[in-house]
Amino acid sequence: MRIAVDAVGGDKAPGEIVAGAREAADALGVDVLLVGPPERVGDTKGLPLHECSEVIEMKDDPGASVRKKKDSSLVRAAELVRDGKASAMVSAGNTGATMASALLRMGRIKGVARPAIATPIPVPGSTPTVLLDAGANAEVQADWLVQFAQMGSAFFAARYGVAAPRIGLLSIGEEDSKGTTLVKETNALLRDTPGITFVGNVEGRDLMSDEVDVVVTDGFTGNVTLKTAEGVLRFIQRALLGVLTEADVFDQVWPHLEPIVLDLDPDSHGGAMLLGVDGVCIISHGSSSARAIVNAVRVAKEMVDGDLVGHLRSAVSAT
Amino acid sequence: MRIAVDAVGGDKAPGEIVAGAREAADALGVDVLLVGPPERVGDTKGLPLHECSEVIEMKDDPGASVRKKKDSSLVRAAELVRDGKASAMVSAGNTGATMASALLRMGRIKGVARPAIATPIPVPGSTPTVLLDAGANAEVQADWLVQFAQMGSAFFAARYGVAAPRIGLLSIGEEDSKGTTLVKETNALLRDTPGITFVGNVEGRDLMSDEVDVVVTDGFTGNVTLKTAEGVLRFIQRALLGVLTEADVFDQVWPHLEPIVLDLDPDSHGGAMLLGVDGVCIISHGSSSARAIVNAVRVAKEMVDGDLVGHLRSAVSAT
Repeated sequence: MRIAVDAVGGDKAPGEIVAGAREAADALGVDVLLVGPPERVGDTKGLPLHECSEVIEMKDDPGASVRKKKDSSLVRAAELVRDGKASAMVSAGNTGATMASALLRMGRIKGVARPAIATPIPVPGSTPTVLLDAGANAEVQADWLVQFAQMGSAFFAARYGVAAPRIGLLSIGEEDSKGTTLVKETNALLRDTPGITFVGNVEGRDLMSDEVDVVVTDGFTGNVTLKTAEGVLRFIQRALLGVLTEADVFDQVWPHLEPIVLDLDPDSHGGAMLLGVDGVCIISHGSSSARAIVNAVRVAKEMVDGDLVGHLRSAVSAT
Repeated sequence: MRIAVDAVGGDKAPGEIVAGAREAADALGVDVLLVGPPERVGDTKGLPLHECSEVIEMKDDPGASVRKKKDSSLVRAAELVRDGKASAMVSAGNTGATMASALLRMGRIKGVARPAIATPIPVPGSTPTVLLDAGANAEVQADWLVQFAQMGSAFFAARYGVAAPRIGLLSIGEEDSKGTTLVKETNALLRDTPGITFVGNVEGRDLMSDEVDVVVTDGFTGNVTLKTAEGVLRFIQRALLGVLTEADVFDQVWPHLEPIVLDLDPDSHGGAMLLGVDGVCIISHGSSSARAIVNAVRVAKEMVDGDLVGHLRSAVSAT
């Protein structure tokens, strides 16, 4: 198995990305193929490099850059997966361009209306809650949300080994009558969708709980929700650091706190997955460290081993 | 000045509600008039009671119950404000029914399309960020969102004494081009709206920051966002309590932590305001303690003293 890693994507590229790729290759027994322009990548730490001439920068327009920069690391990485020269791709670069590259080069799984980004939200002491769509589609239709539920269910099962993941629909009250017209319509469709365990509407406060495994929503609400949770966590961590330092107990508390802080760190969770494209595509967050890349490659490997794409295909074609 | 307090609304009614009303009357030099059925209220602690015969319960359907229970504490409290027998109403009861009672009995300020719920999100070390709509209107139009911005601006100025509050539009990227069709349309309208300081799109992570004062969004996204933030805070507080206990440093840390915990407690912030109805209506959260009611009455008094309704009227009629 060979995983293509975009060596020039992300705020800490290429240093942390290449370091993580090297560590993943050593630790996971998997071939890692870097992708990028040699002069931007620099030292590959002995890893093979698939050379290209262009880089899609973080601030580039996703659609336009993927059309224009045909010899970019993102487009080439997606082509490697399409052509069977890599089993999966990993990038911490421009999220929109990663999505567009994967969609345009790998294509969609037959029957999938729209791919969606599935992001694990850490819940220390429990399995993460997977939120989708985390931002691929700002506006959606009820039948797309039903497919997000099916794909989210298949992904959660493959990723966390849970047979019948509990699927919730994000709304503003638990009753079926609560929410927008779209949410009410989707709720009714999900109640009649075979092959998933629909637990009904859930609320924002259920995301960091053990009440639900997969939370389905549109990409606008999903993205806002995710960034709200990140913002609150960041605020509290900063405030807490101040408090523990003031009280002069940091060293005493840290051994107890560290496991929770580590679990809440997105670098621990292998990044988000683009579900619905015909290949494994991992979108690691922009500030990914070497550790994030190791975990992303690990998850990519597991999803290839577990035939995630095959499971997604079955889940979507079941209806 | 006299503030009408729904004595039978909220999970801790009537005990905590009456205790808070009594404390507010003593501390704030304001008349407090309890509203409720005498047999449900019990001991009024010497406060006057406006008697009625019905109670809208937390689980009642808002629209139907307001139509049917014409002699309920919520409907009567709104009538007291309409008739000039009270200057403001406060309830920790059924949120939807509080909104419906205020809307049906007080009516809307002339020119307001839809009232919105404005909720302060605590930001320790800074003024809160006011989020609206926090749940009154699951589906909205661009021109309603513009009015929410105008009303939010007037409210923030009156509530926190800030001359030109920074107004942000909640989206999934800072660029004007990011978001749904509705958000893009609203962004363009807000750029041309006089009388407000529009800082452009903001993201979920800006809510608990000093980047923006008022965040405008639809009631679906707003409610989900608010409950997500509450859920994350609750999760972290519980985890942290465990950690500090394990490390045996709770007593040492608490004096440093207490101000932050207190500030993050919704009971400290006087509840949400229903903006756009022709009167001051404070919606305190369901689990309000006596302290929450004291703060709600204090904010009600300040908003009456500061002629909030007059300012809202001017803000909306300016365009």
